[in-house]
Amino acid sequence: MKLYKKVILPKGFKANAVACGIKRSGKLDLALFYSQVPAKASCQFTTNKIKAAPILVDKKHLKLNKEFHAIIANSGNANCFTGSSGIRDAEETAAELAKLLAVRKGSILVASTGIIAKKLPVHKIKTALEQLLEGLSGDGINKAKKAIMTTDTFTKEATAVFDVGSKKVTLCGVAKGAGMIAPNMATMLTFIFTDARISQRALDVALKNAVKKSFNCITVDGCMSTNDSVMMLANCAAANPLIDRNSDLALFSKALTGICMELAKLIIKDAEGATKFIRIKVKDAKNFQEAQKVALSIANSSLFKTAVYGSNPNFGRVVAAAGASGVGIKEKDLKVQMGSLKRKEINVEVSINRGNAAAVIYTSDLTPAYIKINAAYN
Amino acid sequence: MKLYKKVILPKGFKANAVACGIKRSGKLDLALFYSQVPAKASCQFTTNKIKAAPILVDKKHLKLNKEFHAIIANSGNANCFTGSSGIRDAEETAAELAKLLAVRKGSILVASTGIIAKKLPVHKIKTALEQLLEGLSGDGINKAKKAIMTTDTFTKEATAVFDVGSKKVTLCGVAKGAGMIAPNMATMLTFIFTDARISQRALDVALKNAVKKSFNCITVDGCMSTNDSVMMLANCAAANPLIDRNSDLALFSKALTGICMELAKLIIKDAEGATKFIRIKVKDAKNFQEAQKVALSIANSSLFKTAVYGSNPNFGRVVAAAGASGVGIKEKDLKVQMGSLKRKEINVEVSINRGNAAAVIYTSDLTPAYIKINAAYN
Repeated sequence: MKLYKKVILPKGFKANAVACGIKRSGKLDLALFYSQVPAKASCQFTTNKIKAAPILVDKKHLKLNKEFHAIIANSGNANCFTGSSGIRDAEETAAELAKLLAVRKGSILVASTGIIAKKLPVHKIKTALEQLLEGLSGDGINKAKKAIMTTDTFTKEATAVFDVGSKKVTLCGVAKGAGMIAPNMATMLTFIFTDARISQRALDVALKNAVKKSFNCITVDGCMSTNDSVMMLANCAAANPLIDRNSDLALFSKALTGICMELAKLIIKDAEGATKFIRIKVKDAKNFQEAQKVALSIANSSLFKTAVYGSNPNFGRVVAAAGASGVGIKEKDLKVQMGSLKRKEINVEVSINRGNAAAVIYTSDLTPAYIKINAAYN
Repeated sequence: MKLYKKVILPKGFKANAVACGIKRSGKLDLALFYSQVPAKASCQFTTNKIKAAPILVDKKHLKLNKEFHAIIANSGNANCFTGSSGIRDAEETAAELAKLLAVRKGSILVASTGIIAKKLPVHKIKTALEQLLEGLSGDGINKAKKAIMTTDTFTKEATAVFDVGSKKVTLCGVAKGAGMIAPNMATMLTFIFTDARISQRALDVALKNAVKKSFNCITVDGCMSTNDSVMMLANCAAANPLIDRNSDLALFSKALTGICMELAKLIIKDAEGATKFIRIKVKDAKNFQEAQKVALSIANSSLFKTAVYGSNPNFGRVVAAAGASGVGIKEKDLKVQMGSLKRKEINVEVSINRGNAAAVIYTSDLTPAYIKINAAYN
């Protein structure tokens, strides 16, 4: 398997982006990802009880359809807490695009990210659609990956290439996200494309597992978003032997998890205001859930995160956060190891002597720059 | 009932404080609260699984004894995560003080606050005990209230005076706490003294209720401490008709809750780096627990807290935090009211249309100063 730190669209996919005027800065804010042949889709969405309108529309489309042609995503406006007019705006976007592509409205998925509780300027999107379609190309992904960014300071992209049977399969992903990042999942959008021929069942299982091991193991600020989405299209263009419940699925899953992990880590590296990348491993727990609960309690502790920012080896804050997790840790069983906090990459290892399970969470430090970014963002 | 924003020790109590050298700054760091006559005690401690040594020692003393004479509290060192030597240090402090006071070791309660995971310099405490005892006086409380401070920028104190039968009863409290503040409870120490004659059962009920309504309704940073303690002594010196399960208990409870509420609000007003005092009311919930869960989810959202700091009316962050609470709120049922964020005191009112219960949480904004304080604290 070959891994690339850049995005290479698989066979049969094209993309493009334009600045349609949602972002006041005039930067790219509308991306289109398109598959010429109908593709299977698999999606994972936020567990926040308040879900953005595009997610509600996508859920409906996913229920009613088996074949998908495109994902359209805007940045600068989350189209969330916008009531029935928000739903109408998301549906209108899908319908208008479907008309121009001459496909069914239900074969379009929509995504939004940006400020919550402001009406989506859907006329700006509609006006831009023709131009968006005209520019579709393989290389257009390099514009699309930029158009989904909000407070991101760099693009997040990765590609895996591997053989299934004698056929070359490509799997790539682009992501955005830098703040409001917490399981499950981050405030982020991730779009993954593959030309693999794979059964719907295998695709769903592989994506669910990959998200669990990657995007659900990162936190910036413990704030769960309303718009989180991981959306995947598989268009079968590689013409490989069908991946179902066989050894090829293990390979595909490994590639998909690898891509998701890479994108998740990039989100943490780009965390708002962050100066450090922190890996917290909790081991010797009774089970994975328990280990993750302790790791998250530490990762979301503002006191721990500020201590890391200050390169201040305040060991007690790890202890207090572990104890506050609710897991029945005994003082004599709690062991904490921390490397020097002066480095850019920090490792914290916590043992709780209750069993054999472990979990890893990735997070960032909490800095004055995080506050500066978020005090002003609107 | 008369309420005072200063501390007035009830009959039969004395206090004092010295600088014994635990704080490198040379400031007061050892406080003694003393009742000449034996007093009943009631305490509420942190629910953190990792509890500081003094709490473990106090729990033992509270189990074995019914009469108490003194509370000794140091700042600058939490005596937490210090293993069996920490327990020995706390016990030695109690034993040595008991010897000098000619009372039983079990009639002494101990408290510590400050950095976690450093050995308590118990010899400094022991050396200072004689001087501490010599200076005991009614006015000594004004030194003691300063000696318990860590990152606090002002003292926290309140007094209630009321009649039970024909007797004047006094109830006063002093508190410390400014960061690592989250239910249950805050990183704080609160010491409450009353000369009321009250049954043990009534005292325990009144304190538990008061703490539930006050200290368990505040959060600064969602970080639960290992040392939180509310400790109360009642020495019966007012010689009032016994307060038990009668109308006098309602009066006593009202006074106690009032004092605890005042101290809890002072802690939030002194929150590390805070520029604003935020009151979050969640109403129309199915029950109190549900209302509090939503209010806490908002209060602990770093994104909400930075928005308040920036006077940035980012409504969506309240919506996202409410939705992330896990409570099954529907978008159409969620109403959010926020006054101008430019004021010093902010009111947020959230209605979730699920029932008739409500809860209020008090919190502060998240500022660069919070990070500065906590990046350097050790």
